[in-house]
Amino acid sequence: MASFVYDFADGDRNQKDLLGGKGANLAEMTRIGLPVPPGFTITTEACKSFLSLGKEPDGLADEVASHLSALETAMGRRLGDPADPLLVSVRSGAKFSMPGMMDTVLNVGLNDESVVGLADQSSDERFAVDSYRRLLGMFGSTVLSVDDSLFGAELDALKDRRGTANDLDLDVDDLRELVTTYKSLIRNHTGSDFPQDPREQLDLAVRAVFDSWNTGRAVLYRRQERIPQDLGTAVNVQAMVFGNRGMTSGSGVCFTRDPASGAQGVYGDYLQNAQGEDVVAGLRNTVSLADLETIDKPSYDELLAIMEKLENHYLDMCDIEFTIEDAKLWMLQTRVGKRTPGAAFRIAMHMVDESLIDMDEAVRRVTGAQLAQLMFPRFDDDAERTLIATGMNASPGAAVGKIVFDSDTAVALAEKGEDVILVRQETSPDDLRGMVAATGILTSRGGKTSHAAVVARGMGRTCVCGAEALEVDVKSKQLRVRGGDVLREGDVISIDGTTGEVFAGAVAVSDSFVVRHFEGEEVHEDLVSSVARIMEHADATRRMQVRTNADTPEDAARARRFGAQGIGLCRTEHMFLGDRRSLVEDLIVADDEAGQAAALDALLPLQREDFTGILEAMDGLPVTIRLIDPPLHEFLPDFTEVSVAVALEDERGNSDTDHHRMLDAVTRLHEQNPMLGLRGVRLGIVIPGLFKMQARAILEAAADRIAGGGDALPEIMIPLVATVRELDLVKDEIEAVCDEVEDERGVRIPHKVGTMIELPRAAMTAAEIAESAEFFSFGTNDLTQMTWGFSRDDVEAAFFSTYLDAGVFGVSPFESLDTEGVGRLVRHAARTGREARPDLHLGICGEHGGDPASIHFFDEVGLDYVSCSPFRVPVARLEAARATLG
Amino acid sequence: MASFVYDFADGDRNQKDLLGGKGANLAEMTRIGLPVPPGFTITTEACKSFLSLGKEPDGLADEVASHLSALETAMGRRLGDPADPLLVSVRSGAKFSMPGMMDTVLNVGLNDESVVGLADQSSDERFAVDSYRRLLGMFGSTVLSVDDSLFGAELDALKDRRGTANDLDLDVDDLRELVTTYKSLIRNHTGSDFPQDPREQLDLAVRAVFDSWNTGRAVLYRRQERIPQDLGTAVNVQAMVFGNRGMTSGSGVCFTRDPASGAQGVYGDYLQNAQGEDVVAGLRNTVSLADLETIDKPSYDELLAIMEKLENHYLDMCDIEFTIEDAKLWMLQTRVGKRTPGAAFRIAMHMVDESLIDMDEAVRRVTGAQLAQLMFPRFDDDAERTLIATGMNASPGAAVGKIVFDSDTAVALAEKGEDVILVRQETSPDDLRGMVAATGILTSRGGKTSHAAVVARGMGRTCVCGAEALEVDVKSKQLRVRGGDVLREGDVISIDGTTGEVFAGAVAVSDSFVVRHFEGEEVHEDLVSSVARIMEHADATRRMQVRTNADTPEDAARARRFGAQGIGLCRTEHMFLGDRRSLVEDLIVADDEAGQAAALDALLPLQREDFTGILEAMDGLPVTIRLIDPPLHEFLPDFTEVSVAVALEDERGNSDTDHHRMLDAVTRLHEQNPMLGLRGVRLGIVIPGLFKMQARAILEAAADRIAGGGDALPEIMIPLVATVRELDLVKDEIEAVCDEVEDERGVRIPHKVGTMIELPRAAMTAAEIAESAEFFSFGTNDLTQMTWGFSRDDVEAAFFSTYLDAGVFGVSPFESLDTEGVGRLVRHAARTGREARPDLHLGICGEHGGDPASIHFFDEVGLDYVSCSPFRVPVARLEAARATLG
Repeated sequence: MASFVYDFADGDRNQKDLLGGKGANLAEMTRIGLPVPPGFTITTEACKSFLSLGKEPDGLADEVASHLSALETAMGRRLGDPADPLLVSVRSGAKFSMPGMMDTVLNVGLNDESVVGLADQSSDERFAVDSYRRLLGMFGSTVLSVDDSLFGAELDALKDRRGTANDLDLDVDDLRELVTTYKSLIRNHTGSDFPQDPREQLDLAVRAVFDSWNTGRAVLYRRQERIPQDLGTAVNVQAMVFGNRGMTSGSGVCFTRDPASGAQGVYGDYLQNAQGEDVVAGLRNTVSLADLETIDKPSYDELLAIMEKLENHYLDMCDIEFTIEDAKLWMLQTRVGKRTPGAAFRIAMHMVDESLIDMDEAVRRVTGAQLAQLMFPRFDDDAERTLIATGMNASPGAAVGKIVFDSDTAVALAEKGEDVILVRQETSPDDLRGMVAATGILTSRGGKTSHAAVVARGMGRTCVCGAEALEVDVKSKQLRVRGGDVLREGDVISIDGTTGEVFAGAVAVSDSFVVRHFEGEEVHEDLVSSVARIMEHADATRRMQVRTNADTPEDAARARRFGAQGIGLCRTEHMFLGDRRSLVEDLIVADDEAGQAAALDALLPLQREDFTGILEAMDGLPVTIRLIDPPLHEFLPDFTEVSVAVALEDERGNSDTDHHRMLDAVTRLHEQNPMLGLRGVRLGIVIPGLFKMQARAILEAAADRIAGGGDALPEIMIPLVATVRELDLVKDEIEAVCDEVEDERGVRIPHKVGTMIELPRAAMTAAEIAESAEFFSFGTNDLTQMTWGFSRDDVEAAFFSTYLDAGVFGVSPFESLDTEGVGRLVRHAARTGREARPDLHLGICGEHGGDPASIHFFDEVGLDYVSCSPFRVPVARLEAARATLG
Repeated sequence: MASFVYDFADGDRNQKDLLGGKGANLAEMTRIGLPVPPGFTITTEACKSFLSLGKEPDGLADEVASHLSALETAMGRRLGDPADPLLVSVRSGAKFSMPGMMDTVLNVGLNDESVVGLADQSSDERFAVDSYRRLLGMFGSTVLSVDDSLFGAELDALKDRRGTANDLDLDVDDLRELVTTYKSLIRNHTGSDFPQDPREQLDLAVRAVFDSWNTGRAVLYRRQERIPQDLGTAVNVQAMVFGNRGMTSGSGVCFTRDPASGAQGVYGDYLQNAQGEDVVAGLRNTVSLADLETIDKPSYDELLAIMEKLENHYLDMCDIEFTIEDAKLWMLQTRVGKRTPGAAFRIAMHMVDESLIDMDEAVRRVTGAQLAQLMFPRFDDDAERTLIATGMNASPGAAVGKIVFDSDTAVALAEKGEDVILVRQETSPDDLRGMVAATGILTSRGGKTSHAAVVARGMGRTCVCGAEALEVDVKSKQLRVRGGDVLREGDVISIDGTTGEVFAGAVAVSDSFVVRHFEGEEVHEDLVSSVARIMEHADATRRMQVRTNADTPEDAARARRFGAQGIGLCRTEHMFLGDRRSLVEDLIVADDEAGQAAALDALLPLQREDFTGILEAMDGLPVTIRLIDPPLHEFLPDFTEVSVAVALEDERGNSDTDHHRMLDAVTRLHEQNPMLGLRGVRLGIVIPGLFKMQARAILEAAADRIAGGGDALPEIMIPLVATVRELDLVKDEIEAVCDEVEDERGVRIPHKVGTMIELPRAAMTAAEIAESAEFFSFGTNDLTQMTWGFSRDDVEAAFFSTYLDAGVFGVSPFESLDTEGVGRLVRHAARTGREARPDLHLGICGEHGGDPASIHFFDEVGLDYVSCSPFRVPVARLEAARATLG
């Protein structure tokens, strides 16, 4: 039978499933001979049994007893011994870090008797009583569910009576009084006394940690972080060591390299006569790790040796917690350390240069998300700034603009060309127009799944939310800063969506070094050279190609500089706007095919010119051009606006105006659900000549370039195909046009005709469609809309934040591909399409093409390329390589 | 090697794939010893080879030669023999009947020489020359592609010159002149002479039949009828026999029973001295089959014996074509005869009573479509009527109303409670409002896939289209009847969508006998008793249950009388309309949860009452109630209307009106694509309490009925679920409400909670959803919309007729389930859902639940029930049985 309890000496770092992250690393450190206070781990299996049975599984109590007994022997102390008690900490530790989500109880083993023994042994009565007081508070709130704030209130009241704000000013009698008060609190709120039996304390604490797996906030956290709900937590029971037993004791946190810059050399903080909690709480000023050398050279030397050993062992930068008790160094925790994006790239390349890891591993060590952060515009390092608040870094970027408090003002100022920051307590669907108009969004309430955060990320707007130090008064149009300053509508602020910082005034913004490098500028920065070396290896490694979504020669050229290997999606919609709008209106209001044909003839040369520029920018690379997709009424004025204009004309007695004529056209084309209307290939079939004109423009442009010595590789893509028959109808037309153009121009035009797969029906009938399509490009935006049955425009603002809070999504399916639902359709279509046509070329041109998690999925299902916006191209190159490396 | 040619004596009726329908039946008749003029069939395989090679396959010519030679031997005549020529007919004959779609050439073998021999042999020069003239015309148009009308024009011109309208008045010299004229026509239009070589005639005629498989109209017909394009046609080459060789000759068409009424006893028409074509053309009056007894008793007796033999052989009513040449009877064709719906039921039961077939077979012999036709309201048989035109029977039913020519008038009159018939040349999307307002639609142009036909069928409106005898003048608002009568706007007409007939004035309409029978009335009609007996056996036979979609106690009760075994879909939307609208507005405009709760509390008792009535009507049977599905703004006025009202108020200087306040609410809830918006379960999650209120109303109603001794079996259905998590959230709420209600009322409420499967994502994740759902009900309307990515409202009128014409659809996917696309999702969900939960109950509540083809599909994928509108319940019962019988 498997054990429920493992001694730290019995496990290793590979057992995170069973021992949790903390327990596995404690075991690993023990295994490699580091000074870890002894203890044992109760496994996640025990937790799962407990949660399903509603009680401790058989055998657990005995196993705990025998491991406890071994611990007592090792420590030479006994739990609850009145003379010299062993104290233990009881800490949760799940496979995935869930910071602050679950429970910890320290000093388990103290009671009315053993507190005396601890005082004697430590020769420090205040320390002993304070430890007891802390146990009562922690145990009372965590294990016995007494409201935490009640203990805090008693402490505050006592300090008030003593006229101090500092716990350290309380003397032993004060603390003894608190012990008495805390005990009464527990008795009054639970009906029972605080348990004096140390083993009972331990069992109850373990049970409390088990139970903490299923608190509402933990469940929610896991939902949002996509951590499975059925993993359970391990529980680490460890002999207590104390950094707060005088000036020869202390606690510290350190890293084997600088987690901010990635610079080589250790980095950390140390605090004498303190416990770990005190270091983190920041009540007293820590000293740098280097100062420990002068304070306690033996411990310092030992620590440095341990850090070197850990880095060589983990082959990565480590994050370490340690305590020195009376000049004896103890390791309390280690793990691979979190780092900034820049540090990630630098550390990876340093480690390659130090021969710790190879280039493949360096690519694995950095992420597309980190690279993306390095590419956001940022506030100049040297620029002056006045921090007024810090909130959640809800949507990255650096935005500077005038404060506005409502959508109308936001829209009005934005129309004048002003940058504005929309400031609200929190946003709702009513604020959507303002959010669209603003360059940044700032709220004083709400977290990373608040409405503001979700919508801003969806729109790519910089957003800081939950900046609680700010008081937003929309009525008086004031933003009050805690401390007293008041900002008003029109005042300029700067917000950093990457850090969550809010600054008064305009902070200078500049392009990131990395973008300047991608643009071809020589940038002499260690960071840039690290990025360049990693990207070079990524390109050599990856299986999938990376293309870009670009509609103009300028975007195409930039994307090519950023490493794009062609265009995966060139939309043709914008080519129908601007000064061509009148031609399009002619097309739409034409009474007959002759009128339509005339309008199309006028559009042809303009379209051809559009394509010539794009084919030139991508010379030698494939260019996938999608024929027109949106419903025609998008090119006409809004139905409601025209209806209002006509009603007003009627009111004035004018019954035959341009407004009336436009209303006729708009009414004819009005749709209840344009997303589900006459668009895409349907338009191409219903309006004879529309797709033909576009195909001719593309093929003439290609022929002209080829005749001029260029290398044009157009791929014509049909949108919104549901059945192979639709594709056949249009493809026949296109091939006929191609034959004509080849004859007219006397050149052969290498080209392909393929289709978007963006309707569930197309995915389900991919085998049939592949008989006719030379390539598929997954349009995952529409495919997501149709598969879920909601349109991004309509529902993202209306209920995505509710859905994220309720855990229906871990992330918006428009941000990261829903692999469980939409992904199954993609997988089915890719597989059955390839079965029908083995050389079928497969790509994806939805916004998911630039999303790291989605890219890994696309690699797994065997797509040939992903296509994304120019700025995401480097991200996709890197993630494609990481996907290849697995 | 397989043969390309089969003698009639070599095949049988089971070889329709190879020999086509006509060929297989000719072979069968030959096989059982009936007098069939000898001949042979060139197989569909030969046709397919020809079409793919572009030329006759190797060996075909030799096989034809050898079979021809055998035929010549059997007939004692030689093809093209100048003295006594064998003539043959060359007829197409595909597996599935494609009436009028493909080509026939008669009299092959005549030329300038053999026409003389034929004249000698028949002692009838006029007959011989006329036969030659006919060959030239038929061969010229069919084989040589000379415009058919040119031949007709020459014939008409000649008759004009002779001052007659009757071909029979032309004498042999006239016909000889025509022969010369026809030959010149052929030479002038083809550049070559009519081929005199009989074998060349035969080969070209065969080739023409092959080619006729791929004419545009044939391809289109097959697309629309869902006949595979790759079957090819067989070609029947048969010795000619002539019914037009005097008064001892003749041709006839007969049925072994009356195809109109189903009455026992033979039925048919005979025409002396005529060919089959003449009988069909109706130029001369035929006599009844009974008269043949006096004309030619031996032939009559032989024919009756043959008819009896055929019926006993085919075990079904047969349709026969025969010719008597000089007192010798020849069978030219037989097949299972088409019949009216009423005849189908009567014949089936008569044959059971005659012990020809069993009850299972009787159920197979009738269709749901036939039953549905018997259930449409019909014009009283005895009512007076004046037929003014006949068009296509585009959408069944009997409609009476005032003529209107435009949508505005249609809407205006309909709002006054008048029945109107919208009359147009043809309809377009602009006419949609009028079509909705009208009780019937009549067009003078367009066929069964015209816009009017498609949209009318979709809406269930009676429609006659393509009534070409009518001239519709919309400008002067006149409907001119060929012959001179003029009807005007406001005049009453009656249209029969089942027959395509148009009558002047009001024709009395009555419920069908069958409906009166289902309603429980005693109807003494042979037809009704046949229907009743077949339905009884169908109910005993079918595997699937049949439920109904009903939202009111009245509908529920009627459906129950019609045989429904529960409610599969009770919508709750209408319960929020009428005088409850103000409560719903309160709910929508409520600022906070308290305001919403108050509105919900007011709705609760009203909803409970709704459910009580329905549960009572369905006592003892399951009632599936869907929680509210549509977006809330459907309960508010239209966005554009309110915008216009507000603009007008503003214009008048009123800035704070009810219109303004309503616009705020409507704007807040306005959606670009309501179908893809905040509806269904999303609404239930975003508005706390809405679903809870509905669940409470349902469960309280059920508890009250149970407490009162009733038997309530509510099934609560959650709409628009995309993920199991949504369902879990709502289900937990419902179960909590149920516990409360059970406690409050002190009864246990048997109930289920399940979900619609109407989003592609739900279908793809059915296994996960089945973990939580006790039943699935496929919402195939929404599922079709999302899978195809089009909304019925927006696209059906806009392009379905184009799509039907282009063969993208054979039938609208909203009428009959798209088994290749949407059906794959249904199949996947049914299979994976059942794998996850073996007792998962599966049903379907989309409109497809009443569609025969779809019902067979649902049976095949293993659903437990279909649910449909009350009037479709009997249809579904019958088709479910037919599906079981396979």
